Amino acid sequence: MEDNNSQASSPASTTEGKPIRCKAAVSRKAGEPLVIEEITVAPPMPGEVRIRVICSSLCHSDVTFRELQVPPAIFPRILGHEATGVVESVGKDVSELKKGDVVIPVILPECGECIDCKSSKSNRCTNFPFKVSPWMPRHGSSRFTDKNGEIIYHFLFISSFSEYTVVDIANIIKIDPHIPPDRACLLGCGVGAAWRTAGVEPGSTVAIFGLGSIGLAVAEGARLCGATRIIGVDVYPEKFEIGKKFGVTDFVHARECEDKPVSQVIIEMTGGGADYCFECVGMASVVHEAYASCRKGWGKTIVLGVDKPGARINISSHEVLHDGKCLMGSLFGGLKPKSHVPILLKRYVDKELQLDEFVTHEVEFKDINKAFDLLSTGKCLRCVIWMDK
Amino acid sequence: MEDNNSQASSPASTTEGKPIRCKAAVSRKAGEPLVIEEITVAPPMPGEVRIRVICSSLCHSDVTFRELQVPPAIFPRILGHEATGVVESVGKDVSELKKGDVVIPVILPECGECIDCKSSKSNRCTNFPFKVSPWMPRHGSSRFTDKNGEIIYHFLFISSFSEYTVVDIANIIKIDPHIPPDRACLLGCGVGAAWRTAGVEPGSTVAIFGLGSIGLAVAEGARLCGATRIIGVDVYPEKFEIGKKFGVTDFVHARECEDKPVSQVIIEMTGGGADYCFECVGMASVVHEAYASCRKGWGKTIVLGVDKPGARINISSHEVLHDGKCLMGSLFGGLKPKSHVPILLKRYVDKELQLDEFVTHEVEFKDINKAFDLLSTGKCLRCVIWMDK
Repeated sequence: MEDNNSQASSPASTTEGKPIRCKAAVSRKAGEPLVIEEITVAPPMPGEVRIRVICSSLCHSDVTFRELQVPPAIFPRILGHEATGVVESVGKDVSELKKGDVVIPVILPECGECIDCKSSKSNRCTNFPFKVSPWMPRHGSSRFTDKNGEIIYHFLFISSFSEYTVVDIANIIKIDPHIPPDRACLLGCGVGAAWRTAGVEPGSTVAIFGLGSIGLAVAEGARLCGATRIIGVDVYPEKFEIGKKFGVTDFVHARECEDKPVSQVIIEMTGGGADYCFECVGMASVVHEAYASCRKGWGKTIVLGVDKPGARINISSHEVLHDGKCLMGSLFGGLKPKSHVPILLKRYVDKELQLDEFVTHEVEFKDINKAFDLLSTGKCLRCVIWMDK
Repeated sequence: MEDNNSQASSPASTTEGKPIRCKAAVSRKAGEPLVIEEITVAPPMPGEVRIRVICSSLCHSDVTFRELQVPPAIFPRILGHEATGVVESVGKDVSELKKGDVVIPVILPECGECIDCKSSKSNRCTNFPFKVSPWMPRHGSSRFTDKNGEIIYHFLFISSFSEYTVVDIANIIKIDPHIPPDRACLLGCGVGAAWRTAGVEPGSTVAIFGLGSIGLAVAEGARLCGATRIIGVDVYPEKFEIGKKFGVTDFVHARECEDKPVSQVIIEMTGGGADYCFECVGMASVVHEAYASCRKGWGKTIVLGVDKPGARINISSHEVLHDGKCLMGSLFGGLKPKSHVPILLKRYVDKELQLDEFVTHEVEFKDINKAFDLLSTGKCLRCVIWMDK
């Protein structure tokens, strides 16, 4: 293991084109802790880069996929999708990146050439569609093998819980190396829903269902867009105190509404409903409540929460026709990764966008399972996992 | 009856402030023909005008409400809501209209003063919300009584199947008297969905589910907006021939898709789905199909069809989150009546907007029940009912 470590931290020039042996935290069985073990990371294929991971942030999707017993869960797999790293080597025909570039991988591919990537209206790349695939997007294969030569699967095209990983150039954004890596990695999962999907306008009223880290990111985005009233809805009143740091101005305790539906409370508070409602819980029933809470005439309901497979949203046909509301989803916050993430990072550097408050915990790589425990408590927003220096 | 007729056509000056006795076609019992009988029309109250109806066009909603056995059906009622008329007298405090003005009543009120009427984003007036009420919007009472002094109910704030009717100024648009009345009346029910709700752009691909008069109006609107491909979907192939007159370029026979869902056919025809899908049938299941037919990334599905009370739209939560599509309803085509209907009438006068082709039949008032029969055959688009001269 010591040898592997020294290989892992050796200059890129000596590893280029060769497999790298390094440590990774492998999810081997549903519901069980990750296992830190030695793996082999193949060199990048054409259109790919291999990166040395500096740090990762833990997201609820990682937890979900460690626990999930049914497809699209698959084992063994390397989780992790919010990260900052340094390019170790590039595959054939890669000219836009070079070794030493500081990068963040992002879950949503952007090839830059398809009709979607060229349209200002879409952030869903046609050439490399977003999916929870076990493979690399361009070549449909894995770059990871374990000590026995068995394949380890990828996760969200990133798999950053490894000292080294391979990522497609469609999923990589080069960033200013002066940006702190433990902040840059937070943008790997999208905070743009208020800005890009909803188009929140100055003076707007916003209601956010679920004040977890997605909900708080929406609040921060809504605050940046100039919303004057940001109503947080949650079943834990202590979330309001956290929410205030991200611009939440009002709180509705979803279980203490005196027998009224939450939507009725919000309609009364706002004199007709919120201009924008964000569902950040991942429950179809909460989508209904959010839809009912938004203002007739122009209200928009944006779905960000991931419900269980097969869940259905059920709305009154009459309500859709008559109320002039709009229902839409927001994948990666509606951001076009390569165009919009750098704008958000600039706003962080300029101290307009607040990211620091999201990081409530940090652990070393060897303690990665502690990060999973912390996130499950509900008191951790983001836990940064530092790879061994 | 002869006396009443002569009273009905007497100069407005002699009837102002007095009840008018005239003929109306009254819907007395669900499913039965209208009864032409003598009624009394009270003078307009403050904020209202009494108008002499020149002609009406028959819409499917009139047929639906003649047949409907359950609320919001109510009897006896005077149906009719697409009309052209002349102001006979105005109520107290009415300054924006005067006797002799040529007007079209519209089902959607626009007070001009509430937050919605002042917003460019909404066409749902807060002061007088749209509803299928049996009463006048401002005073909550009826202006109609029958020979026995019993109340007759209003319909959609208009009730134009009467020689005289009373309409709130919020529901009245003054028009250029040179516009043919049998064309002006067609805009009383909205043809703006492609333009205002969807915002169809030049070069767009549009799919229209249901080529009845609403679907054809959407086609005409899409053509005006510069859509280059307009796909009609219907179970009657002869509708395609009619559709071609309104810009429909392609046809999908919904029952002859070789076991594929219609959405699959449209996705294949368009290389990914239509930019805009319009549901003009009024069936929740067709809404699903329209939603599935629109393009991932930016597709919009607009619901115009009126389903039966209690119908629910049911969509996959995953699809909403991941596909970047938008679902919205279109009431009165998203038009702000007083701002947008005059623009459409101007485009008709300038021969850009085609209305003539909608009028396939005409009847005299005494034959109004023939119009109902014609519309039910599916071969009639719009039948104009001329009041007695």
